[in-house]
Amino acid sequence: MTYSGSIHLRTKGYSDIIDLTRNVESIIAESGIREGIVCISAIGSTASITTMEFEPALVEDMKEKLEQLISSRERSRHSETWGDDNGFSHMRASLMGPGVTMPVSSGKLVRGTWQQIVYIDHDNRGRDRELFVQLVGES
Amino acid sequence: MTYSGSIHLRTKGYSDIIDLTRNVESIIAESGIREGIVCISAIGSTASITTMEFEPALVEDMKEKLEQLISSRERSRHSETWGDDNGFSHMRASLMGPGVTMPVSSGKLVRGTWQQIVYIDHDNRGRDRELFVQLVGES
Amino acid sequence: MTYSGSIHLRTKGYSDIIDLTRNVESIIAESGIREGIVCISAIGSTASITTMEFEPALVEDMKEKLEQLISSRERSRHSETWGDDNGFSHMRASLMGPGVTMPVSSGKLVRGTWQQIVYIDHDNRGRDRELFVQLVGES
Repeated sequence: MTYSGSIHLRTKGYSDIIDLTRNVESIIAESGIREGIVCISAIGSTASITTMEFEPALVEDMKEKLEQLISSRERSRHSETWGDDNGFSHMRASLMGPGVTMPVSSGKLVRGTWQQIVYIDHDNRGRDRELFVQLVGES
Repeated sequence: MTYSGSIHLRTKGYSDIIDLTRNVESIIAESGIREGIVCISAIGSTASITTMEFEPALVEDMKEKLEQLISSRERSRHSETWGDDNGFSHMRASLMGPGVTMPVSSGKLVRGTWQQIVYIDHDNRGRDRELFVQLVGES
Repeated sequence: MTYSGSIHLRTKGYSDIIDLTRNVESIIAESGIREGIVCISAIGSTASITTMEFEPALVEDMKEKLEQLISSRERSRHSETWGDDNGFSHMRASLMGPGVTMPVSSGKLVRGTWQQIVYIDHDNRGRDRELFVQLVGES
């Protein structure tokens, strides 16, 4: 048994971090799947999905760390070739990966109390985004 | 068909790396699933799961590299706000991701000879940890 | 319902980046699965799979960034112990992860227009590589 859903977001860019946990959990509830997995995937090459404790201090730390590891101010061949100035966005997205796959058990997402699913938009501008959520399992 | 298992670990923290391959392979054997996938997921926001060649020299290299990329000694807003001094642990976990999903074929985990599944506990103290293992496939 | 495929590649090493999208999409088409997920997994501990916009300028940027984050010239205990000089390859692979799992819907891989699936061979020499592709879903 499979079930699909999608999530629409308005983001701010520059590794803007958005908590998706409620959106994902309501798709799981709708699906009727009790045992299986859920795959949450960014559509596009400048965003990532991972888990973190979603609290404001850590959100700022994470954005600063990404700026240290792959700076938005450094030159890139991609930015120079295409003029869109978002080479750093692509590199952050590829490093962190485009999605997460997590277990669903007894009809619930299996996660820690302080572990949220987050979408990170690395692009250099706000965007309207769509994410795809696919469940596979049994009711 | 789905099958669930869990793995309990006692860790040391500071990106302590533990080989999970046997634990995962015995859950696959118990499951009776011959073709499908296995999703191994950390419960909590300060640990990661990935694959590596699990040998002592590389384990030390990896811990040192994580210390270089995201130092346990640098200040973080998370640590200052909550007083738990583990902002670095959260950032390492979010960067590497909370789990891996791998193929199961002919009843076996599909992996390289020198490729082990590892749990990395980035927290700043030893912890008792539980991991969730979810299989989806057919017998 | 499950379906397995494999992909064979000849790589150049040093984080050589190869576009796998057509290979994966033809396995999805062969499978007859219309709704589900596809798990693409590297066999071995010195390669990664992620998504990126596969264009030459960004490919060079990404290789340079990986060289900055985990240099092929730095000493490692792994290289010194085993004499194979590829400690950096292992660390890059573990950091980025061995595979991606993505949704399949209406018989198609769910991805952005400029989002390709790529294999990155971090090893320090060209290699013949095999990847495993596992689909789980329904027709």
